[in-house]
Amino acid sequence: MNNTTLKEIANQLGISITTVSKALKGYPDVSEKTRKAVVELANQLNYTPNSFAVNLRTKESKTIGLIIPTIVHHFFSNVIEGILEEAEKRDYMVIILQSNEKFELEKKQINLLLNKRVDGILISLSNETGEFNHLNTVLSHNTPLVLFDKIAKIVDCSKVMINDRKAAYDAVCYLIKKGYKKIAHFRGSYLPQNSIDRFLGYKKALEDNNIPYDPSLVFVCENNNDFQDGYENAKKIIHENLNIDAIFAVTDLVAIGVIKYLNEVNISIPGQIAILGFSNWFMSSVISPSLSTIDQPGFEIGRKSAEILFDEINLKKNHLPIIFQSIELETKLIERETT
Amino acid sequence: MNNTTLKEIANQLGISITTVSKALKGYPDVSEKTRKAVVELANQLNYTPNSFAVNLRTKESKTIGLIIPTIVHHFFSNVIEGILEEAEKRDYMVIILQSNEKFELEKKQINLLLNKRVDGILISLSNETGEFNHLNTVLSHNTPLVLFDKIAKIVDCSKVMINDRKAAYDAVCYLIKKGYKKIAHFRGSYLPQNSIDRFLGYKKALEDNNIPYDPSLVFVCENNNDFQDGYENAKKIIHENLNIDAIFAVTDLVAIGVIKYLNEVNISIPGQIAILGFSNWFMSSVISPSLSTIDQPGFEIGRKSAEILFDEINLKKNHLPIIFQSIELETKLIERETT
Repeated sequence: MNNTTLKEIANQLGISITTVSKALKGYPDVSEKTRKAVVELANQLNYTPNSFAVNLRTKESKTIGLIIPTIVHHFFSNVIEGILEEAEKRDYMVIILQSNEKFELEKKQINLLLNKRVDGILISLSNETGEFNHLNTVLSHNTPLVLFDKIAKIVDCSKVMINDRKAAYDAVCYLIKKGYKKIAHFRGSYLPQNSIDRFLGYKKALEDNNIPYDPSLVFVCENNNDFQDGYENAKKIIHENLNIDAIFAVTDLVAIGVIKYLNEVNISIPGQIAILGFSNWFMSSVISPSLSTIDQPGFEIGRKSAEILFDEINLKKNHLPIIFQSIELETKLIERETT
Repeated sequence: MNNTTLKEIANQLGISITTVSKALKGYPDVSEKTRKAVVELANQLNYTPNSFAVNLRTKESKTIGLIIPTIVHHFFSNVIEGILEEAEKRDYMVIILQSNEKFELEKKQINLLLNKRVDGILISLSNETGEFNHLNTVLSHNTPLVLFDKIAKIVDCSKVMINDRKAAYDAVCYLIKKGYKKIAHFRGSYLPQNSIDRFLGYKKALEDNNIPYDPSLVFVCENNNDFQDGYENAKKIIHENLNIDAIFAVTDLVAIGVIKYLNEVNISIPGQIAILGFSNWFMSSVISPSLSTIDQPGFEIGRKSAEILFDEINLKKNHLPIIFQSIELETKLIERETT
């Protein structure tokens, strides 16, 4: 853009040439209102879209932010891989942050990413997150945001998830059809939506099959759904003589903890107790007995989330309206030796 | 810094005020030589180090780059976690890239990170990488670089690793002491230093214990050391009737493939064939039989690599000399059911 035109825009809008130049370069100290006015007028003055795009491009960081609860986690590793693959195609970089399931850290990380002026943010919420002002801040900054896996229904943005309630419902119906009658649920902690939905699916499946729901058969995995939670809860079930014949675990890792304990005390799987996991981690196929589970498509969740985010970044760049999407990806039941 | 002084520096050096200002802000279009001259003169003119630091600070991106071969990998997940923990302490962000074990992609990613002006780069090399100009480019840009795990001895920078040769040597000596005599090695591919070193440790242990080295007992895992490599090579050993009594596998994942196959054909572990892995993945402790292995401290490797990188970034910022370090972290043998 030559100086004559900068001057023309500055004159027409009654602002300085510096402000016009800054607005076109996307500098943050120019208000959104001014920037829009400048961009519109520049368009009217017939700038070719290309040279214009070059000017606007400086506003892009070609970087997106990703916040996940845990790095050492087969499911999230797959999600990251899906995201990196999409980013790679577009020469985008991904800043990855681990919230460690801590709400305070997650909030801080959102601010770090906004200060870094990333072009968009992907996030799976921490188990502690029950309040969403930090996400609304992202949206009020006009920064594209996509929630995946551990989402918040109340936040108005695009989301990629599975239907946890239906997957859990189908899983428990499958156990019932197999003849299991006293089915315990090792549930996740109380805040995450996916943990709530898996529990509700379990409960509904019992009710629809005329098996009374018994709260004493529900065990909470407080420790972020890990191996140790499964191990300890299995021990409790055996010590309390609860006589259950199947366990539906909120994650494979919990289920693997159960297998470990039951193997140790020589309880036959599935002879005495059947086990069904959730996620289909790689190790579920190689442990003994191999774990029946619900396949949760991590790579595809990452890929789809990134794809939507990049679409929204492009729409925003071209000043086109964004329509939020909620995508539910398919899960499937994998039958192995534990059921 | 006020304009009077900018003018003074510009006059004394015979350059424009803009160039002086750019040099102090660390703009890339000012040559390193000019920048140094400006900084030195500004120092002579008695600028307080603090206000000065503020000007220089704009040269920092507070971002580092990390290139790893694979994301869906227990060891590398732990490395990433160690790196993120150190970065978090310093409010640094980490851009993570996956080379997918491809040399061309790794080279491209190095360039992307340099263009992004990251403050430093951490890298574990791809299995294809046998030429190191791209790393020398990083060093010639004066960007701190730390190699970890899959390193190149020839590149002159800091390195964090384990002593693969010694760890493998100790592992095979342990098998020999246990009475195993015909020990096969499922080695990694030919380029990575750690794969070479583990093989050399295996060979030396045999020789030092008067067991002749037999190349027909060495199987290469071409497929990036994965589960399928272990499975297929185990099948080969059984079909070829090689009569081996132990297998030393280059990684746990390979060893787990071996266990899977031997379990399928009902060969008793360790009764007929003992198995020793390398890395100590989480799943090695929960599979059946549980896998004896060498613990490779992934989290600590990540933590230490990041710590050294941040130290070097600080030294560079303060114009202090950097002395490269080569750190070898301790491994230990974990005895479980497969030996």
